[in-house]
Amino acid sequence: MTTHYFEHPLNEKTRIYLRVEALLAQLHAASQFSNQYQHQLFFRALFDLLDIFEQIQLRNELAKDVEKQKNIYRNWMNVDGVDQQVLQTLLTEIDEIHTNLINADRFGIELKDERFLTTIRQRFNLPGGSCCFDLPALHYWLRLPADDKQRDAQVWMKSLHPLAAALHLWLKLARETGHFNAHTAYEGFFQSDAEEANILRLNIPLEYGVYPMISGHKNRFAIKFIEFESTQACTRDVHFELAVCS
Amino acid sequence: MTTHYFEHPLNEKTRIYLRVEALLAQLHAASQFSNQYQHQLFFRALFDLLDIFEQIQLRNELAKDVEKQKNIYRNWMNVDGVDQQVLQTLLTEIDEIHTNLINADRFGIELKDERFLTTIRQRFNLPGGSCCFDLPALHYWLRLPADDKQRDAQVWMKSLHPLAAALHLWLKLARETGHFNAHTAYEGFFQSDAEEANILRLNIPLEYGVYPMISGHKNRFAIKFIEFESTQACTRDVHFELAVCS
Repeated sequence: MTTHYFEHPLNEKTRIYLRVEALLAQLHAASQFSNQYQHQLFFRALFDLLDIFEQIQLRNELAKDVEKQKNIYRNWMNVDGVDQQVLQTLLTEIDEIHTNLINADRFGIELKDERFLTTIRQRFNLPGGSCCFDLPALHYWLRLPADDKQRDAQVWMKSLHPLAAALHLWLKLARETGHFNAHTAYEGFFQSDAEEANILRLNIPLEYGVYPMISGHKNRFAIKFIEFESTQACTRDVHFELAVCS
Repeated sequence: MTTHYFEHPLNEKTRIYLRVEALLAQLHAASQFSNQYQHQLFFRALFDLLDIFEQIQLRNELAKDVEKQKNIYRNWMNVDGVDQQVLQTLLTEIDEIHTNLINADRFGIELKDERFLTTIRQRFNLPGGSCCFDLPALHYWLRLPADDKQRDAQVWMKSLHPLAAALHLWLKLARETGHFNAHTAYEGFFQSDAEEANILRLNIPLEYGVYPMISGHKNRFAIKFIEFESTQACTRDVHFELAVCS
């Protein structure tokens, strides 16, 4: 049975984390500049990240969250039945990532002052604004050999490594806290309590032709299924899988 | 010798035409949805076009310009040495495109009210806003079979055909009016008079490591070459090719 995977953040912080994760993935995927439009995806993702970093003190928030996870895993030390070697490896990894994170500059600060990026950032969001007459420096850069462009991209992305490593770790561990269970949304509606949850993960069979609208917060949430074709609320029972992750 | 091709519009109208041409090309290139990021290019181009159509009455402007070209080519009828058959074919083509253009609805009007597009357009410009929790309907649509998505794209793009045909014709004929000639920008600077010019086309040898900054209007323009590495004005002589198109 083919299912459709959805994730939903239950607080503003996790919402930002998931957006940043998606942007980092896009940045990475486009960083080969292997066709004539990949630079658009690359710079759009990069400038979106800089926008987010300017609005939010992401580093401190993430450092606190990683530390919280470290403390949770520390509680498993010397507990019977827990593989202590695996646990120690994880704790060392968390420690290292946490240290790199708190020693890092504010995210994006290096990139904000990078001359070439500054030149093109202003006009990049104009509708159709990446023409050669709007951004001649960009169009010169695009004609450089692929190696040069990829090297520049690596330099720009390098300053984001501490963020990327911490974010991937935090999201990986958060996602692992939840387990998929079968549920039914009677007449297309489902609600439940949660406990300090951050992320909902859903597997929805494609055959229903529905997508979820989710509202809620860390302790309570509701899922309403919407018919894609009519955009009306679904009134059938929907069987789906749900993992609540903290 | 490898050269770098640049185009520069000498008035606001042509600037819009070239941006729309670039967006239509991007829309077309991305309309196969052949990888997981092409939809971003597709919808970005589509929504940028809708933004432009909302700001500018493009249809009437373009219809006037196509008619002007028709009248210029009509003057070649029955002139000795002009291939009358080729001319007649061109005039028929211009006529047909002009008629389709003036009979078309205002550009984008159909798309503006399309339910699915309206749903996703609002959030598409948020930084990182195309995550599944921001746009669940879009993420449902992305999981549809490629054929379905391509068919939807064809429907959306079809309403832009009269625009695309007229714009491509106008730009093609405009570009053909200019011929490349060799010039030298002494100490990196070149200026010249023009006559009702719309577009400058430049071929600049890559080896100089420069890009052009162009200012001017239909009757006079100046080109200043900038060193890519230092972003300072170039003070060397630059040999380049230029076509002035009306």
